Amino acid sequence: MEATRISLVQPQGATRLVVASEPDGWLAEELAPWVAGRQIFVVTSERPWQLHGAALHGALGAAAGHRVLPVPDGEEAKSLAQAERLWRALCAEGGKRDSRIVAFGGGSVGDLAGFVAGCFLRGIAVCQVPTTVIAQVDAAVGGKTAVNLPEAKNAVGVFHHPELVLADPRWLATLGIRDLRSGLAEVVKMAVLFDLALLERVEKTLGALERGEPEAWGPVVAASQTIKAGVVGRDPAESGERELLNFGHTLGHALEAGLGFGRLLHGEAVIYGMLFALRLAEARGEGAEVAPRLRRLLAALEPPPLPALDSDDVWSRLGRDKKAREGMQRWVLVDRPGRGRVAALPAAEVRPGLKEFLARPWGSC
Amino acid sequence: MEATRISLVQPQGATRLVVASEPDGWLAEELAPWVAGRQIFVVTSERPWQLHGAALHGALGAAAGHRVLPVPDGEEAKSLAQAERLWRALCAEGGKRDSRIVAFGGGSVGDLAGFVAGCFLRGIAVCQVPTTVIAQVDAAVGGKTAVNLPEAKNAVGVFHHPELVLADPRWLATLGIRDLRSGLAEVVKMAVLFDLALLERVEKTLGALERGEPEAWGPVVAASQTIKAGVVGRDPAESGERELLNFGHTLGHALEAGLGFGRLLHGEAVIYGMLFALRLAEARGEGAEVAPRLRRLLAALEPPPLPALDSDDVWSRLGRDKKAREGMQRWVLVDRPGRGRVAALPAAEVRPGLKEFLARPWGSC
Repeated sequence: MEATRISLVQPQGATRLVVASEPDGWLAEELAPWVAGRQIFVVTSERPWQLHGAALHGALGAAAGHRVLPVPDGEEAKSLAQAERLWRALCAEGGKRDSRIVAFGGGSVGDLAGFVAGCFLRGIAVCQVPTTVIAQVDAAVGGKTAVNLPEAKNAVGVFHHPELVLADPRWLATLGIRDLRSGLAEVVKMAVLFDLALLERVEKTLGALERGEPEAWGPVVAASQTIKAGVVGRDPAESGERELLNFGHTLGHALEAGLGFGRLLHGEAVIYGMLFALRLAEARGEGAEVAPRLRRLLAALEPPPLPALDSDDVWSRLGRDKKAREGMQRWVLVDRPGRGRVAALPAAEVRPGLKEFLARPWGSC
Repeated sequence: MEATRISLVQPQGATRLVVASEPDGWLAEELAPWVAGRQIFVVTSERPWQLHGAALHGALGAAAGHRVLPVPDGEEAKSLAQAERLWRALCAEGGKRDSRIVAFGGGSVGDLAGFVAGCFLRGIAVCQVPTTVIAQVDAAVGGKTAVNLPEAKNAVGVFHHPELVLADPRWLATLGIRDLRSGLAEVVKMAVLFDLALLERVEKTLGALERGEPEAWGPVVAASQTIKAGVVGRDPAESGERELLNFGHTLGHALEAGLGFGRLLHGEAVIYGMLFALRLAEARGEGAEVAPRLRRLLAALEPPPLPALDSDDVWSRLGRDKKAREGMQRWVLVDRPGRGRVAALPAAEVRPGLKEFLARPWGSC
């Protein structure tokens, strides 16, 4: 694909986003001026680095020096212990205010590396090079960084926007079907809220997307980043429109936590979260126009069956404090295709349907 | 003293600063609306909490609930382990995005609590209630937060501005003479750079200040916060004028690190740092007008003698990378009373005088 270039103006400056798969070497060419003459730390995990790390080689020669700092694959990377290990490595290697970090990998690598960059010497510049669907279409854009605590996911983090985001959809061909579909769930979420042309594209090219074909993924990644950058640009601090991007995530996070992280992939949990939000809307007589279409598409993503869950446990995770459990809860609902809204629903309206939903998330059919 | 109110507009919003010592209960009255109806976490250390914590009692009743989270006194508070302990406590106690932190104590308590607030759920609001000179005149204003690593002081932190800073100079009466004088070093630093009336006030009321008399300290704290808030408001990210506040800190930090933290108080190290910066200026034929006056005042603060230090070791800490050791170094110099500047000095111009300085910091006399 030709390069798609997006510019995002955010409170900390500007982010330049490039999605491209040709010509060969495009990424090194984009990255070289950004690393030129500086001390560079590449935070990455084994799998993406072995498969695709060569894409950086042509650029790193322009740096004053570089170190590759490996972290575990997946959610395990997102711990304070890993962050501390990286900060100490940065110190030991002479990291300074003008040193820079390149995050090369999936969403967890990006979240950790972004957090480490955001707090080292009160913030050094970071470039996100996302290698998975979920990172390319969503996580790498918008400046949210975090690590987990035993008590809660993403409990410790900062907003720290990357200066540069470079994504090559060719890498997605090496992902497994579950990772591809999990990432598609986030694409579908953004498309149904903001971009019906993208929704239609996903429906029509689903087969090619599920095979990880770069020609199919290129425009989908570009369109997703365009949506995300637009929303973040208009509402960087999540005080309004950006909250819509939590569609499917309210219950999704509770499911992930209730099951123990890793039982369902993030996007799979979000699929069930969107299904539940559809039910909440339908119970209010809303969403009739969008529900069948969205359900059909989510079903096509074939998430693993929802394991048995105690609805009291899930409920307690939904409303972490008494106010949310007994008063009003904020839910993102989709009114009709292309339009979402944040609704304050009485907890008493949400609770009764939860048990039934957990038993039969796809409905009575 | 009557209340002095300062407003600081910074990139994250606005900070309201109040310095006052009357009427009794003024602080609780200022704080109550800010904590009203919210979950409040008070981060404090044993000494200030026992001596002065009662000042908060009248306000905390307005909160939905509050927890006091004690941390060690002094620099020991500023560790990732302490930050992690606090984050986990916040999670365990149901801390949410709209929960708030009150930092009650010295500079270390404020640095830690500000960092914890800045990273919890990507940032919750914090009120700084500084109880020591150095915290009241300097550290509580400007949003710098950090913890230390074994490798380097303040290596991990964020800019996270308090919404509110409340300072009562009456508390300074319970400090020891070394803490008072160490704090005065930061006052002198700001006064000589920005406010000659304040410099004169310090010279004239030094005795009362060294006895911790609130009537003497009130206007000094207020004037210092006014200077700091002005500089931070004009240059929040330390890309220009704010760098002047590093006067005395370039060598000061290296001395603290070389001696092992705790041998000299921070302000004492800064006194020696200012003395060295005076020499650098004098070697260039600058600062003749200010040097004798500043030296006289710093001598009156009677810092402990500078322990023996290896100049190679101090030099390596001054320039953490080859570029700084062999090329140009940035030093803050005072040209004349009330005017400082950042000078790029060749390392070769700085190095020769260092050994001589460490042996006789006060000069040949």
